[in-house]
Formats: sequence, C-alpha cells, structure tokens
Amino acid sequence: MSPLLLVLDLAGIFVFSLSGGLAGVRNRLDVFGVLVLAALTGLGGGILRDLLIGAVPPASLADWRYLVVPVVAGLVAFRFHPRLSRIERHIARFDALGLGLFCVTGAVKALQFGLNPFAAALLGMLTGVGGGVLRDLMAGRTPLVLREEIYALAALAGASVAVVAWAGGWYAPWVAVLAAAVCIVIRLLALHHHWQMPHAGNLD
Amino acid sequence: MSPLLLVLDLAGIFVFSLSGGLAGVRNRLDVFGVLVLAALTGLGGGILRDLLIGAVPPASLADWRYLVVPVVAGLVAFRFHPRLSRIERHIARFDALGLGLFCVTGAVKALQFGLNPFAAALLGMLTGVGGGVLRDLMAGRTPLVLREEIYALAALAGASVAVVAWAGGWYAPWVAVLAAAVCIVIRLLALHHHWQMPHAGNLD
Amino acid sequence: MSPLLLVLDLAGIFVFSLSGGLAGVRNRLDVFGVLVLAALTGLGGGILRDLLIGAVPPASLADWRYLVVPVVAGLVAFRFHPRLSRIERHIARFDALGLGLFCVTGAVKALQFGLNPFAAALLGMLTGVGGGVLRDLMAGRTPLVLREEIYALAALAGASVAVVAWAGGWYAPWVAVLAAAVCIVIRLLALHHHWQMPHAGNLD
Repeated sequence: MSPLLLVLDLAGIFVFSLSGGLAGVRNRLDVFGVLVLAALTGLGGGILRDLLIGAVPPASLADWRYLVVPVVAGLVAFRFHPRLSRIERHIARFDALGLGLFCVTGAVKALQFGLNPFAAALLGMLTGVGGGVLRDLMAGRTPLVLREEIYALAALAGASVAVVAWAGGWYAPWVAVLAAAVCIVIRLLALHHHWQMPHAGNLD
Repeated sequence: MSPLLLVLDLAGIFVFSLSGGLAGVRNRLDVFGVLVLAALTGLGGGILRDLLIGAVPPASLADWRYLVVPVVAGLVAFRFHPRLSRIERHIARFDALGLGLFCVTGAVKALQFGLNPFAAALLGMLTGVGGGVLRDLMAGRTPLVLREEIYALAALAGASVAVVAWAGGWYAPWVAVLAAAVCIVIRLLALHHHWQMPHAGNLD
Repeated sequence: MSPLLLVLDLAGIFVFSLSGGLAGVRNRLDVFGVLVLAALTGLGGGILRDLLIGAVPPASLADWRYLVVPVVAGLVAFRFHPRLSRIERHIARFDALGLGLFCVTGAVKALQFGLNPFAAALLGMLTGVGGGVLRDLMAGRTPLVLREEIYALAALAGASVAVVAWAGGWYAPWVAVLAAAVCIVIRLLALHHHWQMPHAGNLD
C-alpha cells in the first residue's frame, strides 16, 4: 500500500471511529466501552469484508497501526464529546470522505480475491457501511444506514464505478479517485439537500 | 447443482427475501433498506454457514443469480406490501418449503466439508433460520425464531434426518426429499395447530 | 489439549452457557430458544475468535463434547432458574473463572496462528466476552460488557500478561495460570467493590 493510501485509510478509520466513540458516550458507556465501540465502527466494515472474501486474519488485525488509530479516536470522543457534538455536521462531511475511500478499496480488494463484479460492488458498499451497522446494532437501534438519507447507495455507486472500470480493463489510480469522488459527491449532496430514497406508502 | 435443485434453492431464497422485505417496509425503511434487508434475510443463513465451514467466498456471492433474486423479491415487497400482508398466512406456508430445503442442503454441505454429524445438523438448522435471525436483529427485536412456535426445531429435525442417513451410508436424493418433508410437515402442523414449545414457569 | 485443560474449558463453557440460558428464560423464550441462547453464549466467543484467525470450522463445532455441555447447561437453566437466580452472585464468581481461562487460551491460540501480540490480546479479550455480547444482542439490549463494571478490561489484562510472556519467550503453563489469575482477581475485586470505569461527563 502506498504511503498516501495508508494515510487516507487511517484518516478514514479515524473519522469512522470518532462517530462510534460519540455513539458510545451517548449510550453512557464507560471509557472502555467507548473505545471498543470506536474500534468496531472504524474497523468493522473491513473486517466483515475480509471474513467474507476469506482474507483472514483481517488486515486491520495484522497491523498495529490499524488498532492504535481507533483507540486514539475513542479517547478523543470520550474527552471532547461536547465540542465534537457541536461540530457534528462537519464530522459528517469528513465521514463522507471515509465512505468514498472505503467503498473503493473494499471493492478492489474483493476483485483481487476473485469475486465477480456484482459481489465486489456489494462488498465495497459493505466495507463502507459495515462499521456503522455494527455500531448501531451494539447500541440497540435499527441501523441508521437502512433508515435515513442516501448513504449506502452512495457507497454502492462509488464501488460500482471502480468495479465497472476493473471489468473493462481500464482500472487505474485516477479511476479509483474518480470512483471515490462519485461516492463523496453523492453523499455530500444528499446531506446538503436532505435527499431521501422513497418509502413505501399505505402502511396500515 | 442440478437445475431442479437450483430452481428450488432460488425459490426458497425468494420467499425468505419477501419476508425480509416486508419487515423492512414495516420498519419504515426506504427502498434501499428494504432491498438490503431482503437480501440479508434470503442469503444470510447460507452465508453464516459458509463462514463457519470455511467455504469462502460464500456461494451466494459467487453467483449473480443469487444476488438478483433477493433484489427482485425486495422490490416486490416494497411495491405490493399491502397485498402481500393480506396473504401473509400463505407466505408462511411457502416459507416452510424454503426452510425444509435449506436445512437439508445446509446439513449436507457441512457434511461434505468434513464436519461431524452433530455439528452438521446444527449448521443445517442455522442455514434455515439464520437469515430470519439477522432480519430480526437488524429490525431491533429478539429473533422471532427464539420466541415463537416451532420453527428452528422443525429445521433441526429435517437436518437430523439427512445427517443420520449420511452417517448410515444410505444418503440419496430421495432421502433429501424425505428429510425436507419432515421439516415442512412439522412446520406446517405447528403453524396450523399453533403448537408451542414449553416455556419456563415461575418467573418472578 | 491436556485433560485438565479440557475439563477447565468445558467448565467455563458450562458457566457461560448457564448465564445465557438464564437470559433466555427471562426473555420468555421457549425451551428450544433457551438452549440456543445458552450455546451461543457458551461457545460464541471462541467461534468469533476462530472465524477471525481463520481456524474453521471452529473448534467447538469439531468436537461433540463442546456441543453437549451448553445443551446440558441450558436445560439446567430452564428447569432450575428460580434456584439459580437466588445464587446468581455466586454464579458471577464462577463466571470470572471462565473469563480468566478463555482470555488466556484465546490469546495463545491467536499467537499460535501467527497474529501479532496486540491483535492476540484483543482476540483473547474477545474470546472471553464475545459470547456475552452475542447473548445481549439476541436479547435486544446493549451488551452489558460495554456498560457495566470491569469485565472486558479484566479479560484484556489477563490476555496481555499471556501475550507479553509469549513475546518475551518465557511462556509456560505456570504463566498461563498466572495470566488467568490476573484476570480473575481483577474481575472478582471489581465485583466485590463495584468498581466502575469512568464515564464521560457533561452529557446534554
């Protein structure tokens, strides 16, 4: 992994872990629970992907830097949560960067492990949203990603761009950047305009 | 896999995915969340089994037909949920067919991967009920299968018939049909007669 | 595995399964649901660890004795839950023994599979607490281990002792005993003195 990609990857994990740590503080977990929830949120998506493609032990367990980052993020969330809550809208924007990065790296890793394009796009999406789903399950609520705003769909769109390029034989670093940008732009627009996917009507 | 078995397998996934999609509509998920919950319900049991026996990537990720069927079922649930709700009792009967099929194919796959008969029967049961458990966890409720009616037990019974036959050396297609039938008949009788397993008494 | 270790391992699973079975009775599950929850609690931590280190099928599925013990524990919980509830404080002490044992055996198994010390300590902790987390998720509540008392931290401490000894090249049976004792003593002291980890302040 190139140094730039490593830094981006760790930055994405940091932001995801922050959101997990904040959820832990709000659920009145103790400091240790906050750290665990931060790590699960930051690393969970990649771990689920690695389990499903058979890349065990998961990459994040094989490199101590991937374990240190969520701990630091969790401590930051624990200590500075009032201040973080005030800038939560900005955190949501950084979160979009993480989402864009993870959906692409996740899809590409699945392709490298020989999965078909359709499955690779889904695993890219899972890499992006899996941590948040685990966070919400641990906090005892229906995963936010299933209920609100365009989040998983943005991840699926970014992953699909990468997968289509790969299948067409013209995957390259700039394509990865483009794919991540597609995800990030969709997500930021959805945040800004409060876009919603349609809900079913006529519920009794 | 024979064409007949493939069709049956996809039909079982379709019915399971319908129940997941309906749960999503009732949880007021948007259309994308409904599709995700449908896929998780239809494919989750087999994916859990494949993870536990080391068959990665899971079979359903390696074949696009297994990914298309839950999407179609989810769209049907999203669009036609009022009508589906009215015929839900009939859906429960089709669901029994899927359960019977999955508990047998799940147990046999575990045996083929070298698991002992006891574990294979459990994995057959897990294949049948796992998707519904994931559906209920995502929807934030105690899994129905743990609480109500004879469901997992029917799957265990069907899986056990297949496992005993395999251990005795007389496994054959007709045994698989018989094992699935055992599960289906128990489940349909339990549905019809509202059979319940005993609950513990004397709760304070 | 030595006969002594096997007996200890099964005893730990028995106690964990008891707590799962009691949770099932309190959630008004039927007898079958109680057995499933008992097994998930007793075996879940080890299964999660085995999935993450790639030791599939998980050890507990490959040995029928590991499947019989939770079933017996679940039946005991189902039948004798009023009596067990009265001695629950004593059960919590036995539970500490299981925790101490599992965090050490879990960490050592991860080291044997080539994981780095940091990850091995985390997997040791996961082996100890994973079953309880699954139990609470199935029962629809935020995992107790994240919320209350010093539990996961005790497991992490015990696992860390084993890992440090291993990395230093002086791991031996008596070190394993010492590491388990560290976990058990911390847990028992925390139980007795109601030690708590700090919680975040200033929640709006």
